Amino acid sequence: MSDILQQLEKILQTRRQAAPDTSYVAQLHAKGLNKILEKVGEEATETLLAAKDAEQSGNQEAVIAETADLWFHSLVMLSHLGISHQQVLDELAGRMGISGLEEKASRNN
Amino acid sequence: MSDILQQLEKILQTRRQAAPDTSYVAQLHAKGLNKILEKVGEEATETLLAAKDAEQSGNQEAVIAETADLWFHSLVMLSHLGISHQQVLDELAGRMGISGLEEKASRNN
Amino acid sequence: MSDILQQLEKILQTRRQAAPDTSYVAQLHAKGLNKILEKVGEEATETLLAAKDAEQSGNQEAVIAETADLWFHSLVMLSHLGISHQQVLDELAGRMGISGLEEKASRNN
Amino acid sequence: MSDILQQLEKILQTRRQAAPDTSYVAQLHAKGLNKILEKVGEEATETLLAAKDAEQSGNQEAVIAETADLWFHSLVMLSHLGISHQQVLDELAGRMGISGLEEKASRNN
Repeated sequence: MSDILQQLEKILQTRRQAAPDTSYVAQLHAKGLNKILEKVGEEATETLLAAKDAEQSGNQEAVIAETADLWFHSLVMLSHLGISHQQVLDELAGRMGISGLEEKASRNN
Repeated sequence: MSDILQQLEKILQTRRQAAPDTSYVAQLHAKGLNKILEKVGEEATETLLAAKDAEQSGNQEAVIAETADLWFHSLVMLSHLGISHQQVLDELAGRMGISGLEEKASRNN
Repeated sequence: MSDILQQLEKILQTRRQAAPDTSYVAQLHAKGLNKILEKVGEEATETLLAAKDAEQSGNQEAVIAETADLWFHSLVMLSHLGISHQQVLDELAGRMGISGLEEKASRNN
Repeated sequence: MSDILQQLEKILQTRRQAAPDTSYVAQLHAKGLNKILEKVGEEATETLLAAKDAEQSGNQEAVIAETADLWFHSLVMLSHLGISHQQVLDELAGRMGISGLEEKASRNN
């Protein structure tokens, strides 16, 4: 299901080639790593604030939107540094003891 | 491939039920939302620092490890607030114009 | 010399009363705590990035400007919550073993 | 009153020379800039969380303690990069239109 990340990565690669004035992603890459990291930091902060508000209100929507922003900009950062999101997922799988085979098997369920 | 996230979510749910003295994840939930958010903020900072170092050194390993930490703790946060990672992926898919059908089709490639 | 902070606090109090369309500070207060905290988080991120760049380039100017932004917005936060910067300085003095008397004496040097 | 910052800066300079196993400040410098910036990021996060809690509870103590931590570690960062806190205060004074003379005069009040 989360092949969404794989598709998103492809889209981000295509958009990176676009003219900066037609694409937000191309603009971020053109402005450079600091701009991208500012956005990662900004979205991390907004995620925390949304989570604290959800603790009081039970409202999950802002948390979902801000976490999406955080993951989106961390994917742009990875792409800027030539890293695939799959390398991050493999790292997570390795730590959790999810083997490639188990992982493949799980896709057939 | 990123069904790794789905598996990870299941593992996080199981570990949440464990005794806090046997599981880091159970411990985080027991300490509460602030502790979890402190970790999200901490890992966001470490991701930025690793990315800045990678800009100089080309070393990607620390960026991969810190982004994995950031995503891991954001999954714990979502789970603490009763949100599935799928809701975040759906939000991302919606924004990028990846329809459920296209997404399903992509899994058969 | 750092009575600058005391003066700044007075200025921030005056500007808080201004019309939001004429004062940045009044605008921040009108938008509320989350907006102010977003700025604190943003400026903390920019401070880190400027410090990492200074490590390579030796350029101190951006660090000074970003730290000023960070302190400025943390003063707005304190004011929004009805806390004086002096309470923060007293906390720091207490921890470092600087007594009020020594502190007063130091001002006459 | 905020000559506390000036005194604190002197204390931080002295402690920097101490053996790392006897002084927290010496330890931070020995571990290097990344460690110091991790602490700045961590304390910024904890300040935000304390401020959000204060919004609900009215409890100011944690905000004061966390802001003190944030300022403390930003002073260590400045010192590590050879910058005086006075340069940051001068930047703030310049922006707010507080002249050196007015500032000096205000100290005699």
